[in-house]
Amino acid sequence: EKPLTIAGRAFRSRLMTGSGKYPTLKLMRQSIVASGCEIVTVAVRRVQAKAPGHEGLAEALDWSRLWMLPNTAGCQSAEEAVRVARLGREMAKLLGQEDNNFVKLEVIADLKYLLPDPIGTLQAAEQLVKEGFAVLPYINADPQLAKRLEAIGCATVMPLGSPIGSGQGIRNAANIEIIAAESEVPVIVDAGIGTPSEAAYAMELGADGLLVNSAIALAENPVAMARAMGQATESGYLARHAGRIPVKHEAIASSPLTGKVGS
Amino acid sequence: EKPLTIAGRAFRSRLMTGSGKYPTLKLMRQSIVASGCEIVTVAVRRVQAKAPGHEGLAEALDWSRLWMLPNTAGCQSAEEAVRVARLGREMAKLLGQEDNNFVKLEVIADLKYLLPDPIGTLQAAEQLVKEGFAVLPYINADPQLAKRLEAIGCATVMPLGSPIGSGQGIRNAANIEIIAAESEVPVIVDAGIGTPSEAAYAMELGADGLLVNSAIALAENPVAMARAMGQATESGYLARHAGRIPVKHEAIASSPLTGKVGS
Amino acid sequence: EKPLTIAGRAFRSRLMTGSGKYPTLKLMRQSIVASGCEIVTVAVRRVQAKAPGHEGLAEALDWSRLWMLPNTAGCQSAEEAVRVARLGREMAKLLGQEDNNFVKLEVIADLKYLLPDPIGTLQAAEQLVKEGFAVLPYINADPQLAKRLEAIGCATVMPLGSPIGSGQGIRNAANIEIIAAESEVPVIVDAGIGTPSEAAYAMELGADGLLVNSAIALAENPVAMARAMGQATESGYLARHAGRIPVKHEAIASSPLTGKVGS
Amino acid sequence: EKPLTIAGRAFRSRLMTGSGKYPTLKLMRQSIVASGCEIVTVAVRRVQAKAPGHEGLAEALDWSRLWMLPNTAGCQSAEEAVRVARLGREMAKLLGQEDNNFVKLEVIADLKYLLPDPIGTLQAAEQLVKEGFAVLPYINADPQLAKRLEAIGCATVMPLGSPIGSGQGIRNAANIEIIAAESEVPVIVDAGIGTPSEAAYAMELGADGLLVNSAIALAENPVAMARAMGQATESGYLARHAGRIPVKHEAIASSPLTGKVGS
Repeated sequence: EKPLTIAGRAFRSRLMTGSGKYPTLKLMRQSIVASGCEIVTVAVRRVQAKAPGHEGLAEALDWSRLWMLPNTAGCQSAEEAVRVARLGREMAKLLGQEDNNFVKLEVIADLKYLLPDPIGTLQAAEQLVKEGFAVLPYINADPQLAKRLEAIGCATVMPLGSPIGSGQGIRNAANIEIIAAESEVPVIVDAGIGTPSEAAYAMELGADGLLVNSAIALAENPVAMARAMGQATESGYLARHAGRIPVKHEAIASSPLTGKVGS
Repeated sequence: EKPLTIAGRAFRSRLMTGSGKYPTLKLMRQSIVASGCEIVTVAVRRVQAKAPGHEGLAEALDWSRLWMLPNTAGCQSAEEAVRVARLGREMAKLLGQEDNNFVKLEVIADLKYLLPDPIGTLQAAEQLVKEGFAVLPYINADPQLAKRLEAIGCATVMPLGSPIGSGQGIRNAANIEIIAAESEVPVIVDAGIGTPSEAAYAMELGADGLLVNSAIALAENPVAMARAMGQATESGYLARHAGRIPVKHEAIASSPLTGKVGS
Repeated sequence: EKPLTIAGRAFRSRLMTGSGKYPTLKLMRQSIVASGCEIVTVAVRRVQAKAPGHEGLAEALDWSRLWMLPNTAGCQSAEEAVRVARLGREMAKLLGQEDNNFVKLEVIADLKYLLPDPIGTLQAAEQLVKEGFAVLPYINADPQLAKRLEAIGCATVMPLGSPIGSGQGIRNAANIEIIAAESEVPVIVDAGIGTPSEAAYAMELGADGLLVNSAIALAENPVAMARAMGQATESGYLARHAGRIPVKHEAIASSPLTGKVGS
Repeated sequence: EKPLTIAGRAFRSRLMTGSGKYPTLKLMRQSIVASGCEIVTVAVRRVQAKAPGHEGLAEALDWSRLWMLPNTAGCQSAEEAVRVARLGREMAKLLGQEDNNFVKLEVIADLKYLLPDPIGTLQAAEQLVKEGFAVLPYINADPQLAKRLEAIGCATVMPLGSPIGSGQGIRNAANIEIIAAESEVPVIVDAGIGTPSEAAYAMELGADGLLVNSAIALAENPVAMARAMGQATESGYLARHAGRIPVKHEAIASSPLTGKVGS
């Protein structure tokens, strides 16, 4: 099993998780451990603003074992997102990750579906790449936009499966598949996944990794769901490279009395 | 995690595998280990007939660690199936499983799609239950037939997801869901599963276990696929009981600056 | 366009409708006209019992233009269904259809999902065929059961798309496709269709006709929905025989400056 | 039935078709008539370049009955598309449509999947709106991009169902649904539709119209498929406004002996 390599940094786990929306910080910590993930995203603005439930959140995790992925959730424009990305870099440094230049870029003006703004995202990405960030942009599953973001130097692309927190699963499989086939940077499917089968499916389509937050944090039993998501991510990745059987419209045309086992 | 209990016997793993169609006996053994399964089905007629690839097959597995599920593959009528079931019981005894009365009942007259005959299956099941077998009948996903088979004393029902070896996945989810909701015996989805996402999905729909053969044995890398199927089966089961998030048509209506984490 | 021929009788329309569940008899009549259907099914027991809403129902339709398909709804056993089928034949005669020997056979013991009983249906069908009925049995989409019913002389098979009135659409497409491919009698998809796209899809899968009741009768505007269902049924049938384009994973590989038009 | 109104012009039919890819001009004409469409798109560059099969194409249609929708197929940049749009306006004038300012805007740099470039499309749209065009931009199903295009004054948005000519159907239903719900200009689903069921489905999701080319022109029988597509488009539109029945997981919970018909 090859590691997932983002901006030169290798990770064994292909599942990333979030830190928000959990009932308690304790359940957050336990779930993150159960998932086996190595990358955890943190909403910089909410932590900075000490938004309800975000007090002490950043400190609650063991950053000697986890890699922080600061995100720009809550930013509605490119300018805001760039500013918050810089704050995120400071936050990572303060918490001991001196060389962490990762940022999950979210530019979301749409408060109903929380769908990303393609133009603002592109603008912010250009600026952040110039400033030396490893940019992981959250985007609609638009293969042409993904190519542009790759061309300007983004470290990954993060197409959504369906709207954030909707649990609708992968509702744009054709585009995800094209992005995965054409991309030369890792493709991380972010948003929409509600169940392990959907996580495995995203990986089977060719994703290099997943980010799952609501489906774990808001499950009745987040710890069990976290473990399930970790297993499903790995199983989908394994299957992708294990050469699945072809889909047939009839059953396997083998005589009922002959098999295929050799020695 | 509750064990899977069939006819009073408890199993930790909820994945069953087959023993046919593998390129070599060695790959079969390795795949079975990688899958983590505890129940392996064996085609009695093919083994008895020393069909190509079945010589030594039954002896090749370590029956002190695995539970044998003799199956009646190749039987086109109820009578044949009953006869082969009895041979299967003898085979299990010879291989050291004195108290093994399990039989996977297949009555298949259709050599094109290998779909089971509901009437012949019901007749054979009645006879075999009378003879003290723990009957695991392979059926189309017909909830009324499933109830009949339960009523006459079958140990499980084994509805198909799609035709054997077709890799089409779960093509009758509505019926599988009804069978799972209404059944008082374990529901094992058998046939059609091609990928881990489909395995997880079947479990999420409410299946108590799965039987996967072609998707593992005929994969390019059977051992990796076996491991993936084992993980996916467990992840789907975990998720089923972890209380998934509801599916929403909009994104989660949370203010972008408020979270939900308490302490 | 070939007519739909059932038991020697030819029909232009491939959509059948029901007569129950409408808000008013007037809307029923208008909807039936708007749908363009020629066959209307009538619940014999409910009409005989003058169940609420069924008084005058049979008389409300113009049987000189419509062909009556008496059904055995409400019958839980083969015996009951045979008895009600005979009453249906009398009813058709009384209403002027001397030579009408059609019966839509429903044997349903399951009052939760209204799924048909395969064994009872087969028994009743055998008896009714012997008595000279043209039997149109309502069944789960089980290809083996369908073959049995065809073999004993049924005039059609009527597999369900999903449970009656559920509006879930076609939830067992693989089996419907097999039944359509293998059947030598007309295949009428009955139950589950909620929208015109689902009606067209069933026809594209190879169905020879459809029966739609709840989706029309319980729509907010039954007359408009009836017209839509009539169009969709025809469009799906046309498409089935018009040779659809193949599904491709890439776009059509044509140079953007060359076309294919000759003269 | 309300007409489809684009840039102040009303159309009865909600299906638009193309003029390329037909085996012969005669079949093109017959298919267009059979479809009932009123808007036909024409590839300006191919006609200007007298590309194979495009000689005489524009003259072959009766523009006193059809409304021309010149398109910018073959343009890889915003600049090219603007130039070709202007040529298209001239072409429409020469063929007698003095007041036709419509243009279907395609900016496609991707020659493998023919997916539109969101940035180039936005730039060209801004310019063309300034020049007084009624702009109908072809886009990936990105709700945020659709809102931008509406905000700058586009006459419609034309999200794709799946890649041009792929016949994959609607592979991004969630986004199409959001675009349809949020848009204040007509939403025309363009590209990917292969069958009538997919056409009806797109309309049921909320599309105001469809553009279908390959699925008709490249069908074995284009005329029959054209008719089927016309019916399916109308049926989907009717159904959208007829109030479909809700989807239920059980059958309709009605006593088998009671109905709902009043008088």
